[in-house]
Amino acid sequence: MFILGDMQIIPSQTSIDPKPGQLLARGVTRHLAQLGFACLDEFKPARGLRMDVMGMGKKGELWCVECKSCRADFQSDSKWQNYLPYCERFFWAVDADFPTDLLPEGTGLIIADAYDAEIIRMPDALPLAAARRKVLTRDFARTAALRLQTLRDPRL
Amino acid sequence: MFILGDMQIIPSQTSIDPKPGQLLARGVTRHLAQLGFACLDEFKPARGLRMDVMGMGKKGELWCVECKSCRADFQSDSKWQNYLPYCERFFWAVDADFPTDLLPEGTGLIIADAYDAEIIRMPDALPLAAARRKVLTRDFARTAALRLQTLRDPRL
Repeated sequence: MFILGDMQIIPSQTSIDPKPGQLLARGVTRHLAQLGFACLDEFKPARGLRMDVMGMGKKGELWCVECKSCRADFQSDSKWQNYLPYCERFFWAVDADFPTDLLPEGTGLIIADAYDAEIIRMPDALPLAAARRKVLTRDFARTAALRLQTLRDPRL
Repeated sequence: MFILGDMQIIPSQTSIDPKPGQLLARGVTRHLAQLGFACLDEFKPARGLRMDVMGMGKKGELWCVECKSCRADFQSDSKWQNYLPYCERFFWAVDADFPTDLLPEGTGLIIADAYDAEIIRMPDALPLAAARRKVLTRDFARTAALRLQTLRDPRL
């Protein structure tokens, strides 16, 4: 783990023993990459919020994916609605055994494992103001570049 | 080296035997990081152009730095003016022995080595249209995130 000044900590997805949600995030990221999305995991769109996966499409579309490994993981999440103002599409990513009836209407659904994923239900589009998109895109850019720098030059 | 679909090749700065210009780029990146900039090396702002270093500041400022290891390296560069429409500040980064009298007026000057750098002359600010800034910021974001993904998940 590296601290990046005022930026964000590099997530521990590369650690030896990733958590179930991190494995889902990897599968999600691989699938979104096939759709042309560049993804960051554990992205902070605002103070106190941390998205499991934020994807940016070729036209700058911003998709948020929250990864839930089990019912308890989902039921303990009281924050997910706070992410809606910071993306244009909101998805849950769960494994094939997850009781998907629990998931709120209007949200997207991705079935994932550690290796790949599939979009089962495309969510409603959410409004995203131009000024907020601009800030999110800039913060996404800076976070990704600073994490990359730190991996390539650990003395940074 | 990895090919990232339609995106950009990961530069070989991490290779065992980096070129002199790449060592300057590392020093530049370290210094700009201290100023709060997130940097990408070998960033392509448009087809046929490749900047040695593109830095993005906390407010989204876009600075281009071209690294020149010697007089011949500078004199063989016929493209640098093409970068001006894609940044707000344009700098040369050279080592302490470089004959800086050669460098064009109005451009910035950074003296660098492999470990650090210092801004000697701040260049004039260049105009950057809002639409182009938007595209550059998006492309910077996607390039950084895709390179990061590829480093962390080589099977992507």
